[in-house]
Amino acid sequence: MSDHRMAPVSLPVAAHEPPYYAVVFTSVRSEAEGDDGYDRAAERLGELVKDIPGFLGEDAARTPGGLGVTVAYFRDLAGIEEWRRHQEHRAAKEYGREHWYERYSLHIARVEHSHGFERARG
Amino acid sequence: MSDHRMAPVSLPVAAHEPPYYAVVFTSVRSEAEGDDGYDRAAERLGELVKDIPGFLGEDAARTPGGLGVTVAYFRDLAGIEEWRRHQEHRAAKEYGREHWYERYSLHIARVEHSHGFERARG
Repeated sequence: MSDHRMAPVSLPVAAHEPPYYAVVFTSVRSEAEGDDGYDRAAERLGELVKDIPGFLGEDAARTPGGLGVTVAYFRDLAGIEEWRRHQEHRAAKEYGREHWYERYSLHIARVEHSHGFERARG
Repeated sequence: MSDHRMAPVSLPVAAHEPPYYAVVFTSVRSEAEGDDGYDRAAERLGELVKDIPGFLGEDAARTPGGLGVTVAYFRDLAGIEEWRRHQEHRAAKEYGREHWYERYSLHIARVEHSHGFERARG
């Protein structure tokens, strides 16, 4: 079935062969600030992270007025560490703590099991 | 379509002391079916899972017309397994594969590092 909305629905990052790593970032945006460059920065970082060795993909969702959950997948911890040290990423996180986020939690986890489901067409 | 803005903003599940486990469920809803009991089932399951020993909390977000990401946290794999075998949960998953979801990915991961941020009031 075709989708005529402006933004295509991205597909979930596929289940890879374990082990690999998931970085779960869950946030509440601050209410007072408006967008304040957030969307542009998110798009820019979403491009930059693709250059990190072992980056497998990223899924993001945000309930309007509610929580945002972003999960980035990496083959190993070295990639996560490289992304953590990335200068533009660090600057964005620092700005985010001052302007964009009311609170957030970060969980770095080693994936041990995974599977996917895709509906059969019929 | 339900209006998620009606619900108060929940707080992200806090960073617990590792190790613990994260179950990441990322989905694309099917377009043809409407709600079809989804919201009610999600609410019901969200209550049931609280009775699972070692359940630490759950964060969920869905971009309208886009991806949904739900992350449930458990102290150990035994809790995840108990939830996986839970009869009402199993029935909902089976129904979901037939009616609610176009596709999904599930990643079960052992959290090794975590931290939280909360904006200082001032």
